Amino acid sequence: MTENKKIEITDLILRDAHQSLIATRMRTEDMLPICEKLDQVGYWSLEVWGGATFDACVRFLKEDPWERLRQLRAALPNTRLQMLLRGQNLLGYRHYADDVVKAFVEKSADNGIDVFRIFDALNDIRNIETAMKAVKQTGKHAQGTLCYTTSPVHTPTLFVEQALRMRDMGADSIAIKDMAGLLTPFATYDLVKALKSKVDLPIVLHSHATAGLAEMCQLKAVEAGADRIDTAISAFASGTSHPATEAQVAALKDSPFDTQLDLSLLAEISDYFREIRKKYHQFESEFTREDVSVQINQVPGGMMSNLANQLKEQNALDKIQEVFAEIPRVRKDLGYPPLVTPTSQIVGTQAVYNVLSGKRYQTITNEVKRYLQGGYGAAPGEVNIELQKQAIGNEPVEHNRPADAIKPELAKLRNDIGDLANTEEDVLTFAMFPDLGREFLQQRLDGTLKPETLRPIDSNQASKLAKA
Amino acid sequence: MTENKKIEITDLILRDAHQSLIATRMRTEDMLPICEKLDQVGYWSLEVWGGATFDACVRFLKEDPWERLRQLRAALPNTRLQMLLRGQNLLGYRHYADDVVKAFVEKSADNGIDVFRIFDALNDIRNIETAMKAVKQTGKHAQGTLCYTTSPVHTPTLFVEQALRMRDMGADSIAIKDMAGLLTPFATYDLVKALKSKVDLPIVLHSHATAGLAEMCQLKAVEAGADRIDTAISAFASGTSHPATEAQVAALKDSPFDTQLDLSLLAEISDYFREIRKKYHQFESEFTREDVSVQINQVPGGMMSNLANQLKEQNALDKIQEVFAEIPRVRKDLGYPPLVTPTSQIVGTQAVYNVLSGKRYQTITNEVKRYLQGGYGAAPGEVNIELQKQAIGNEPVEHNRPADAIKPELAKLRNDIGDLANTEEDVLTFAMFPDLGREFLQQRLDGTLKPETLRPIDSNQASKLAKA
Ligand SMILES: [Co+2]
Ligand SMILES: [Co+2]
Repeated sequence: MTENKKIEITDLILRDAHQSLIATRMRTEDMLPICEKLDQVGYWSLEVWGGATFDACVRFLKEDPWERLRQLRAALPNTRLQMLLRGQNLLGYRHYADDVVKAFVEKSADNGIDVFRIFDALNDIRNIETAMKAVKQTGKHAQGTLCYTTSPVHTPTLFVEQALRMRDMGADSIAIKDMAGLLTPFATYDLVKALKSKVDLPIVLHSHATAGLAEMCQLKAVEAGADRIDTAISAFASGTSHPATEAQVAALKDSPFDTQLDLSLLAEISDYFREIRKKYHQFESEFTREDVSVQINQVPGGMMSNLANQLKEQNALDKIQEVFAEIPRVRKDLGYPPLVTPTSQIVGTQAVYNVLSGKRYQTITNEVKRYLQGGYGAAPGEVNIELQKQAIGNEPVEHNRPADAIKPELAKLRNDIGDLANTEEDVLTFAMFPDLGREFLQQRLDGTLKPETLRPIDSNQASKLAKA
Repeated sequence: MTENKKIEITDLILRDAHQSLIATRMRTEDMLPICEKLDQVGYWSLEVWGGATFDACVRFLKEDPWERLRQLRAALPNTRLQMLLRGQNLLGYRHYADDVVKAFVEKSADNGIDVFRIFDALNDIRNIETAMKAVKQTGKHAQGTLCYTTSPVHTPTLFVEQALRMRDMGADSIAIKDMAGLLTPFATYDLVKALKSKVDLPIVLHSHATAGLAEMCQLKAVEAGADRIDTAISAFASGTSHPATEAQVAALKDSPFDTQLDLSLLAEISDYFREIRKKYHQFESEFTREDVSVQINQVPGGMMSNLANQLKEQNALDKIQEVFAEIPRVRKDLGYPPLVTPTSQIVGTQAVYNVLSGKRYQTITNEVKRYLQGGYGAAPGEVNIELQKQAIGNEPVEHNRPADAIKPELAKLRNDIGDLANTEEDVLTFAMFPDLGREFLQQRLDGTLKPETLRPIDSNQASKLAKA
């Protein structure tokens, strides 16, 4: 606490915050009017793109996500723009060929992205290598990501090794991504300390406030030497979102870690978004309060509610505690994957089968089979060999990177979408979402793009929402 | 971080949490069903009485507050019960004679209170001395309180001196009471460190989460040597209330400061209170989100909303920034009182007059006059002598303890209330609230006590409130 060190802030208000709280529904028209103020703050970066925003734009908002990016770029000339990229999956739901990954990164950079945060659900860094190198080729900032989870294999030592390998790939910084709110303050301190002692790169902490611990984790991260923290303007903070920007700025103010951001300006920005939030009341989740259950059974909040719905549909909600108890066992059998899309669904669904059928692995899902064949990449720890045999029989286990089996596909994609694509960006939209993307481009041509309807705010709702 | 030290928890769910979030309206009938579980947790104490609960019982709920205390005592046989006492004001709104203070403390102890947290708005410890000594006489735990504020005179050194004087009075522990959420994590660390180095007593941190910093402050307090923290079950936590019990327990779990409380049991308790909260939806405040403005202009959240209302009534809401700017000046003129009832009203109202009249102190309120005469006790710093002259002219300044001027009054109170009082407790109820208490006792005699009506939860509200 002797040397002064300005802590940098990445604000998530334009991506993860509304993805976490209102199903990624914030429209560009509600972002642009406040960009001038956002641009004055002096953030290290604003996360504005990637994650589910691309999907939501095409699926619900009928906005061209590339156009959003260009508009934000123009409106935020002084601030780094950041995106979240799912490694070889890009923003879609499968592994893409390397030529698509390269093209996507290039076009993202062309249209305005300065910082690429790249992650893989299994922390299999072969799945982020192509994207990482493509970012380096554009001259932009490549951020390697550690998906945080707890398990016997996920020690600080393992995370340090992964960070070193990402550094060797050219990573300009390392992010710790605690999507479930699993980190505790003292575990954060130890992890960041370990990273800073071995990896000579800026360290960023991205932690969801689900369990109510993220503020404290960030404080301890800063004390351990972290350089940057991810926050969200308070109007869209806390709960499944992130620590409030204003609170973290105030917490570090006049300390050796002062962010030097202006609280009054942040308050004005928050006032703006507090009004905006009302417009999207229909997407408010029921899980916005701190919910510490992830700290009890290590099952992320979103996964718990999905499982509850799954069981309810099968009239088996009374089995939920058994399913929660089965999840760690399935996770162990699969070599302790972090629970994040898609592994959370893979583990959760198999756990439900194991409980409802009364016999473990009587049914094995296709996803578990594919997982055990190496179809998603390498498991963090050792998988259960007997289960693997039972699941895949004599079929081979793939030890190569999944994308190695995928031939270049950009030419075919271009060809498939044909004249519906005016630009290479359009081809990439189609690549991300074959059906949805085609429909979007067709409707654009026909002039029939129409965003989903928003339910009006009646006065009763308005007053309740003001209190939310 | 080497030596293990179990951090103790006081849960505020039955007093400050509902006082902060639903205007102190929780009824005894909603407390008793969960007491068995609360009693199993292993809290150091449960705050259950005092503050505004006595007032709300008599005024709105038409419950006998003493009867509530006895019921909670019976339902919580294994847990210390704690109350908040406003020094010589007890739970009323004036200074009482010493005989009333003694009787009130005795009866509170008789009916079940184990721990008395005693404070004075000005930190004039002469105003807490009688209550403190009365507690010691009953053999119960006397906790001296430092009302936290920031000013040139409120240094750690001053707080340490005050704590030492309270220790010399017999205090068994010292509480830091940050009613406005002014503390920052590093200021907390320094203050607690200073206290622990000089005062050999357990230190407790009571901090409101208004600005979103309280969780971090408690963490740093613990690291600095604090022994106990005040939290609230998550269903009634955060915002103007307190850090969530579950979050703080999870934050310290498996650390050297493990509270050893059971998160699953706490989750069950929170589920119960989440349902209960819906019943009181009409009292939900609009200010439940983190609001960092207290960190910007040092004006507590509750005071800001009061001032806004005051100005709105006078069609002068546009002057609010001027009033906010005037408050620190008035506070300086008055020797930097902490802003808490009643000083927040005294300072706030004078600031409004100063701005609206266009000339500072053209009008001086009676409360400021009384304050400058010493009627509330000694100011923390030096008051503006010219203002004092202007306000009180040749009238003398009282340097003695305000209650020194009050003759014993218990006999007269007994006489005044007469047969309406069945017990000494009834006399004390009348002493706290002369009109309201008399009315309550009369209605009890007449059998016409009737709690205020609660608005039903319509399904729309219910779904919105689940999201609150
Ligand atoms: Co996130
Ligand atoms: Co309080």
